[in-house]
Amino acid sequence: MLTKKPVLSPDRCFSPEPVQRRLAHQFFDSISALPLVCPHGHVDPALLANPAARFGSPTELFIIPDHYILRMLYSRGVPLEALGIPTRDAPTETDHRKIWQLFAEHFYLFQGTPSGLWLKDELTNVFGVDEALNSRNAGRIYDYLEGLLALPKFSPRALFKRFNIEVLCTTDAASDNLENQRSLHEEGFTQIRPTFRPDAVVNLDAPGWRENLTKLESSIGREISSYATFVQALEERRAFFKKMGATATDQGAATPYTTSLSDQEAEAIFARALIGKLNPGDVEQFTGHIFMEMARMSVEDGLVMQMHCGVMRNHNPALFERFGSDKGADIPLNIEWTRNLHPLLSSYGNNQRFRLIIFGMDESTYSREMAPLAGHYPTILLGPPWWFHDSVNGMERYFNQVMETAGIYNTAGFNDDTRAFVSIPARHNVWRRVACNWLAGLVTRGLVDEEEGYDMARALAYDLAKSAYKLD
Amino acid sequence: MLTKKPVLSPDRCFSPEPVQRRLAHQFFDSISALPLVCPHGHVDPALLANPAARFGSPTELFIIPDHYILRMLYSRGVPLEALGIPTRDAPTETDHRKIWQLFAEHFYLFQGTPSGLWLKDELTNVFGVDEALNSRNAGRIYDYLEGLLALPKFSPRALFKRFNIEVLCTTDAASDNLENQRSLHEEGFTQIRPTFRPDAVVNLDAPGWRENLTKLESSIGREISSYATFVQALEERRAFFKKMGATATDQGAATPYTTSLSDQEAEAIFARALIGKLNPGDVEQFTGHIFMEMARMSVEDGLVMQMHCGVMRNHNPALFERFGSDKGADIPLNIEWTRNLHPLLSSYGNNQRFRLIIFGMDESTYSREMAPLAGHYPTILLGPPWWFHDSVNGMERYFNQVMETAGIYNTAGFNDDTRAFVSIPARHNVWRRVACNWLAGLVTRGLVDEEEGYDMARALAYDLAKSAYKLD
Amino acid sequence: MLTKKPVLSPDRCFSPEPVQRRLAHQFFDSISALPLVCPHGHVDPALLANPAARFGSPTELFIIPDHYILRMLYSRGVPLEALGIPTRDAPTETDHRKIWQLFAEHFYLFQGTPSGLWLKDELTNVFGVDEALNSRNAGRIYDYLEGLLALPKFSPRALFKRFNIEVLCTTDAASDNLENQRSLHEEGFTQIRPTFRPDAVVNLDAPGWRENLTKLESSIGREISSYATFVQALEERRAFFKKMGATATDQGAATPYTTSLSDQEAEAIFARALIGKLNPGDVEQFTGHIFMEMARMSVEDGLVMQMHCGVMRNHNPALFERFGSDKGADIPLNIEWTRNLHPLLSSYGNNQRFRLIIFGMDESTYSREMAPLAGHYPTILLGPPWWFHDSVNGMERYFNQVMETAGIYNTAGFNDDTRAFVSIPARHNVWRRVACNWLAGLVTRGLVDEEEGYDMARALAYDLAKSAYKLD
Repeated sequence: MLTKKPVLSPDRCFSPEPVQRRLAHQFFDSISALPLVCPHGHVDPALLANPAARFGSPTELFIIPDHYILRMLYSRGVPLEALGIPTRDAPTETDHRKIWQLFAEHFYLFQGTPSGLWLKDELTNVFGVDEALNSRNAGRIYDYLEGLLALPKFSPRALFKRFNIEVLCTTDAASDNLENQRSLHEEGFTQIRPTFRPDAVVNLDAPGWRENLTKLESSIGREISSYATFVQALEERRAFFKKMGATATDQGAATPYTTSLSDQEAEAIFARALIGKLNPGDVEQFTGHIFMEMARMSVEDGLVMQMHCGVMRNHNPALFERFGSDKGADIPLNIEWTRNLHPLLSSYGNNQRFRLIIFGMDESTYSREMAPLAGHYPTILLGPPWWFHDSVNGMERYFNQVMETAGIYNTAGFNDDTRAFVSIPARHNVWRRVACNWLAGLVTRGLVDEEEGYDMARALAYDLAKSAYKLD
Repeated sequence: MLTKKPVLSPDRCFSPEPVQRRLAHQFFDSISALPLVCPHGHVDPALLANPAARFGSPTELFIIPDHYILRMLYSRGVPLEALGIPTRDAPTETDHRKIWQLFAEHFYLFQGTPSGLWLKDELTNVFGVDEALNSRNAGRIYDYLEGLLALPKFSPRALFKRFNIEVLCTTDAASDNLENQRSLHEEGFTQIRPTFRPDAVVNLDAPGWRENLTKLESSIGREISSYATFVQALEERRAFFKKMGATATDQGAATPYTTSLSDQEAEAIFARALIGKLNPGDVEQFTGHIFMEMARMSVEDGLVMQMHCGVMRNHNPALFERFGSDKGADIPLNIEWTRNLHPLLSSYGNNQRFRLIIFGMDESTYSREMAPLAGHYPTILLGPPWWFHDSVNGMERYFNQVMETAGIYNTAGFNDDTRAFVSIPARHNVWRRVACNWLAGLVTRGLVDEEEGYDMARALAYDLAKSAYKLD
Repeated sequence: MLTKKPVLSPDRCFSPEPVQRRLAHQFFDSISALPLVCPHGHVDPALLANPAARFGSPTELFIIPDHYILRMLYSRGVPLEALGIPTRDAPTETDHRKIWQLFAEHFYLFQGTPSGLWLKDELTNVFGVDEALNSRNAGRIYDYLEGLLALPKFSPRALFKRFNIEVLCTTDAASDNLENQRSLHEEGFTQIRPTFRPDAVVNLDAPGWRENLTKLESSIGREISSYATFVQALEERRAFFKKMGATATDQGAATPYTTSLSDQEAEAIFARALIGKLNPGDVEQFTGHIFMEMARMSVEDGLVMQMHCGVMRNHNPALFERFGSDKGADIPLNIEWTRNLHPLLSSYGNNQRFRLIIFGMDESTYSREMAPLAGHYPTILLGPPWWFHDSVNGMERYFNQVMETAGIYNTAGFNDDTRAFVSIPARHNVWRRVACNWLAGLVTRGLVDEEEGYDMARALAYDLAKSAYKLD
């Protein structure tokens, strides 16, 4: 496979201005060989725990599990059934080569999007495809990829080594037995660590909450019939996760509202949840209270606390009923941090044992609330641009709106936050390039010295993520 | 009239970086001759229906009807009376040459604004004025323009042909008899189409609501004494508009709140409106319900639905009382789409017969709500940057904040949304230039191939608007 | 002290694109010698009133009073005690050379921040330090600065002359006797003017409200036992401030909510405040009403009204209890202008005797609300980017989001809003550079003529601030 012009420009993400571009290359060259630190993501640990695991067909690797791909195709009229997504009650396409062809015919939809950039990078740098995917070469490329994916050197484990990943944190339910991590550790893969994510039991409106609680009961080996027992369960599970290598927790909620309920109030809400008779406001009050409790536990056990806020999950009820969650139908919400975090920060904001990393998709809060909070409280770090904003422009907005107030050292560097294992190097590549180009812009504008630029590039590419998540 | 340096730079809107600028020119050259598609605007069809129509004096063309011009002059202390705006009760300036002189003396206020750019383009490219307007040459330029405007080749019809407008959609009240469109169609001008805009009757707080309803009654030839009849009236009028060539409807509201009222609730509110005794919240509830009804009708008759949300009309009560609406005193509001559109999208968001184009002036919702919604729902397209944001920076923000998530193919291309007929080419010119410069930036940054750039330029300049409004 | 490369780039804040950069230099050269107009700030007039006043140690000058510096160091774990901040009850570091060393060791935190840029400028241009501060040279630089600061030519008065400040407005409590200004005026320093800031008495939840009221009583020489007397007191004090050279007032509040209470309502709230029994909402209602009253008084006495809105003061209660206000723990809030200012603008928005300058830190309101309001009402001007946004990117966002709608002539130019006297030239330098670079961008993009660029540069650097505050 040969073409004249590379599919993937060596200058990608860099300013066309020659002096800035040259400097961006220099910064990038100085950090591009650093290992990848992946402190927050959603890779299935089973992929790595089982040496015989394979990615399946190109369609199983690139299309079916990727909600960014699904949503864009769906938005232009491609039914999810035609993409092989399992439905509750109807047949779905099973010919993966045909799905791939359909995808290739619509690949133009991803022009200028991060998904398009990642995919080009993966095809080029992971699989050696050196032509742009289109409807004519789709079948040929499919066959080529299918051949490679069957080879041991394209197994998840082999790629894990090739990707130079120094540490990879997974995200795991509070009730998870972490068997995959255990077996990986026994094999020496201690750099794969769990993260404690209790959303399924602490958000009282989570789908299947009662079943999730039952799983939590199983994990601690006793019944959870009161709020007090529930909190004990969380504490026990955190201790277990920590023993299994976790350094952090994570929680998602529609809003970063925090509040401190009395024990009686918390017990009353929990009791109503158990009998399935929640009052209006119970969900928000309980989640807001658990944020406080999780902060308290972080002070006690030293796990870094993460908050991901501001998404309305499953916005499309018909799609959710038919195909379930994570099909690209989650839509961000506007949020407010200054007032909502006030109770939590009043209690724990100055505590040297506490660390909180916050993520949101309301970019209007970057310069107004997030950077000022991180630029004052010793306990707060800012997570990188999240989800829809994990893109060239999204990162540039983040740098330009956050860094003047918070400085880079109040951020947590980068994390890829992905379940698409093969996209990890591509995502870090974009971050590192955009960061280096931003720094080159600061230097060419006389705002930062060249020497400082090299230090900052390394911090953004590597050091900050490690130290933020206590991985050093 | 000769000057050395052109008033209008051939490089306008393009980056000074030479490589990007060259490519922007190439993209622009490839699309600049494409016809103009104008699927949403406010040109008075009478201007075109009457072959003898003229624009009047330069002041009547450029100043008196342009609320962008009026608001800026008013904001710096120029009374609207001095600009010839009719008042309810007092004399107003009638010497148009004097008004033009006053305008020229204040023309520096428009430095760096879109109004300034449009006006320079119109003077140069429509009228051949090749010097910058100022207080010294104002009278001379006035006389020159006055001479031209009397000529048949500067009649609205002549300019319509010269402007290479492929289709022009007007905006018309629900009760409009569309006589102008009818006579235009009979003359062969079938490319001039109406748009169904029922704001005056569906927004129960619209000025003169009762009179507007009376007109609607006349248009259907019977009394509207109930909500049920009202809905029938809307359906009948939509059918009439569709027969007269309409492909779309439009609605404006302070908020995109949608809700489904029961028939009894809707009847009760409508009954209160008829007797002029609305309860608090009635207006918002009724408009929110009508949004749902308009979506249902769109599913049935195939008209594209448009929503323009987030403006407080007539913010300045003293000005409104004296001079009426549309004098530059409408101020945008913050809005929310994710929760507000949820009811409507839950009902119609996946319906293949439905199409919804949304517009807002709360740019914080571009990346947070609008692009994610359009990047998921097959029914949603994003309208171009609207009103105050129909500008070089406004468009760049739109491209940078929308396209990574929604891609360009979930947008409706450009529309000029103007009542200033003569400004139409200038407005499309700015859009096409900014789009080409943005694409050149993507190519020089290695994010899009040059070949893709040409395709995207054509789509943004022409194809997307046609297909979004079902004009192809 | 000699190094090869200057610490402060002569190209700082300018685009690396050569044509734009050259033009930016030309614009900057044309305005850099203009005097500084400082119509809003917080310099202590005692510094200037007393010819023998000195700045103290380098630590007293640069660190202890600067809440930008304090918050960043605190955010990375440096205790305020170690920085010499007085606490209510515990010892604090008193060795200023040691504090300076600690600061230098953490100076990398300010990379790319406005504080870092200002400090480099001050060290270079005010004190002639020509090397970058670091942990190794910290002691040497401290000694050097300490030596200079003892010299008469580095007294506040000497620097005032050297800085070429044409006018400097201070900010003073309503009860202030303005003795410093009086003595300055007697010495001929009439360019130092007070500003009337009644927050401490009109915001009923201001710390020490009762004591503040007592001071106000003293200043007018009689008791304030009713709302009516309170309003009279404000009027009397405004008259006194005006006599002492004030041309403006200023008010800060969490929100720009305005409302008109009846006399009875206002009296009732004031009576509750006097007995310390406020109802929920009283504070916001009263402040909102006083905004209206202050506007009325501005119409009567011609003082320019300023509103600074959208900050939650003292967000960190533990820090506040220990160290008091203004230690970097104020966090911005989202705000709304369109609805909140509606009552005030309905009453005074068209009044030729009224002028209102508004400031906020919610940048999402720049293009959505602030620019449209200023681009319509003849009474509104926009203040420059404030507080956290007084930075290179903050200014660029302001220019790009405000100017297309409001034009530059509806803004109030620049003010430094600082209590750090020595940083004044550095802050104006950043504004002037960013403005010139922005204008050079407009010219090189063909949006503004070069000649217009020179006019606009002068307006932004000098004229607008003078005329906005009636200082011409």
